[in-house]
Amino acid sequence: MNSNSVATPHSAEISVNGQSFRIPDRALAVICIDGCGDEYLSVSMAAGRMPHVQEMAATGYRGMVRAALPTFTNVNNCAIVTGVPPCETGIAGNYILDPETGEEVMTNSSKFLQNETILAAASQAGRKVAMVTAKDKLRELLSKNMDGIAFSAEKADEVTEEVHGIAEVERLVGPKPSIYSGEASLYTLRAGVKLLEEGRADFLYLSLTDYMQHKFAPEAPESLDFYGAIDEEIGRLIELGAVVGATADHGMNAKMRADGGINVIYLETELRAKFDQGCRVICPITDPYVVHHGALGSAVNVYLPDGLDQLEVARWILDQPGVTEVHDRETAVRKLELPAAGVGDLFVLSGRNAVLGRSPEDHDLSQLEGSLRSHGGRYEEMVPMLLSEPLSEQYRVKAAGDPRNFEIFDFVCNGLVPRESSTS
Amino acid sequence: MNSNSVATPHSAEISVNGQSFRIPDRALAVICIDGCGDEYLSVSMAAGRMPHVQEMAATGYRGMVRAALPTFTNVNNCAIVTGVPPCETGIAGNYILDPETGEEVMTNSSKFLQNETILAAASQAGRKVAMVTAKDKLRELLSKNMDGIAFSAEKADEVTEEVHGIAEVERLVGPKPSIYSGEASLYTLRAGVKLLEEGRADFLYLSLTDYMQHKFAPEAPESLDFYGAIDEEIGRLIELGAVVGATADHGMNAKMRADGGINVIYLETELRAKFDQGCRVICPITDPYVVHHGALGSAVNVYLPDGLDQLEVARWILDQPGVTEVHDRETAVRKLELPAAGVGDLFVLSGRNAVLGRSPEDHDLSQLEGSLRSHGGRYEEMVPMLLSEPLSEQYRVKAAGDPRNFEIFDFVCNGLVPRESSTS
Repeated sequence: MNSNSVATPHSAEISVNGQSFRIPDRALAVICIDGCGDEYLSVSMAAGRMPHVQEMAATGYRGMVRAALPTFTNVNNCAIVTGVPPCETGIAGNYILDPETGEEVMTNSSKFLQNETILAAASQAGRKVAMVTAKDKLRELLSKNMDGIAFSAEKADEVTEEVHGIAEVERLVGPKPSIYSGEASLYTLRAGVKLLEEGRADFLYLSLTDYMQHKFAPEAPESLDFYGAIDEEIGRLIELGAVVGATADHGMNAKMRADGGINVIYLETELRAKFDQGCRVICPITDPYVVHHGALGSAVNVYLPDGLDQLEVARWILDQPGVTEVHDRETAVRKLELPAAGVGDLFVLSGRNAVLGRSPEDHDLSQLEGSLRSHGGRYEEMVPMLLSEPLSEQYRVKAAGDPRNFEIFDFVCNGLVPRESSTS
Repeated sequence: MNSNSVATPHSAEISVNGQSFRIPDRALAVICIDGCGDEYLSVSMAAGRMPHVQEMAATGYRGMVRAALPTFTNVNNCAIVTGVPPCETGIAGNYILDPETGEEVMTNSSKFLQNETILAAASQAGRKVAMVTAKDKLRELLSKNMDGIAFSAEKADEVTEEVHGIAEVERLVGPKPSIYSGEASLYTLRAGVKLLEEGRADFLYLSLTDYMQHKFAPEAPESLDFYGAIDEEIGRLIELGAVVGATADHGMNAKMRADGGINVIYLETELRAKFDQGCRVICPITDPYVVHHGALGSAVNVYLPDGLDQLEVARWILDQPGVTEVHDRETAVRKLELPAAGVGDLFVLSGRNAVLGRSPEDHDLSQLEGSLRSHGGRYEEMVPMLLSEPLSEQYRVKAAGDPRNFEIFDFVCNGLVPRESSTS
């Protein structure tokens, strides 16, 4: 395994959503470590489990970037692959009330994505693009207009050349893992390593799953093992000559009361009891994979029937323990970069240790084993950014400002010291 | 220098502000690393500059705790030494509008502190308490009712047995440093080491200054040197047998526009132009030491004259770029644990890269050298907590919830695995 096995890719300048990206003449891998609060890195590094990432931090860059609200997977993966916030992607949740039909729908289709992706543009510029996601829900959504390889670890056994750009994933990477496992993420990374090693791809987006982070705190031995294994694969990508950037879609916090119970407010139940049976709460964390979080997160959309005093309801919601912010739609659009069509009459955020739900019947907590870690609010907004090579002076300034997780392709393509001069 | 030189202190159970603390039969040092955003530790550790703190993280604890809003020095130091939030200390800023007199005052006197300190209670329980602060402004404020040693690095040459409980600081620690230096913080730590070493104290609170963090980003060589020197002193405290806990009063962020200018809104100027000449803005960051931040922070109090529509003004303020939250007094009290007397009609927070000021004439930016790093809002709320020994199971659960920086004495006194069993 050495970098000689990777053919030299050609450089390209692409323009996507009003931004330009100078794709370097070498392999590039951007990783979204789903649910990777910075403390997962700190604790794993302190335990000596992430030597390659430690080296990245020492010789490249490690800093904090701000994710898009609400801090959910689809929202931030769409922002990352397009380079712009949710007001431009149109994706404001995993699960939304479609304003055109009034139906509740998952946003797992590229028909909801309103703009173009950096992946598609790179593939159209002739780069060998591969996108591997742990969850299949992201695959179709993020591979919009992309030529190249796009598959999920979850459905690695159902790939075809025609649809996925590759036919033999399991032969290449091994038998597909369970989606409810750390293996689903490691398989995604290993697939990236294999594709790079065999020259099948030189422009990679690898998006993991947060099953482990929902289930385990940073100190848990299972988490340390998981991050140790992530570190090994990142080390392999670097060893193969790729420039590597990594960030997260959101952080992760325990959402428990001091007495050991889950710290949840069932907001639809409360609003219906207090105000009107027509009140409706949509939980944008909802996706096909709810075993590890029961669809409970720290942001919800509230839809109110006509005639209710919106300001009165907003004040009452803010008064509830654990609720930290309540914004009307106009404010959410103006201050939180959200698309109007994707948010409710009110957009509600909860605190570091609190989640919001719909009604007890809407959430299956039976698989949680009495403990909940989740995300969605401001306390899961700050996430790490790791780069395998040092930043240019201009991008050091940018990184010291208010850099965003969805600027990771900008940082990797435009922000690093050119290789020629980096050794001088 | 070894732990034999420290006489064994006696254990004590004290009760302060409704909480009890089991002070261990050994020396204890709590450090407030002023302005220590977690990235200062991460970057310094990656550079190999903090081996003792790295060891603390590996064998004790490193995690994130939430500071009190607004994230300023007096607010959080008072919360830390009393163990409770600002609604109980009464301290909601370094600088407030005294509601009784209508005058603008600094809160640098213990007459403003409404409750009792853990330091005073420990001294009354017979422990040899020493409090050393970098800035003299904190000394009198935090030493309320305390028997023992209390002095500042800033005025180390002006100590007397009668007032400070010690007369020969400069002979013990060396010539006093400039308050505008990293040395002011290092002197504070070295004083703690000396007092411990000589058996003059066994219960220490050491509160540093954020001059360096205001001035330098984590990657700056000056910052790496500074944190390396902090690490050495922490190592000495541990070597002398003390159990060590460290946290911060607030984090620190660059507050710059993309074009290189300081990202500030002069809110009083704007409000007077838009609404009424009677609008008044109080900047609670203001203290006697404004050289390194020009009294610009990410939280301000707004006082409105009678007759203005408060809701209309609030909406207008929220509409300004960089402003993230606007709360009326009642909401600030209810949601942000603030004392009503310490907040304005409106309490305003700004974002990661934005500060709020009064008017251009009120802020001297001449010393900033064109660059501003500051704090005060939610993006400086999450700070590290370091413990030199492992947490008990009960406090591991607490640490995984929504632990606060002002619970550090609770963690150090009540939360660690007892020494007898920690080696088993």
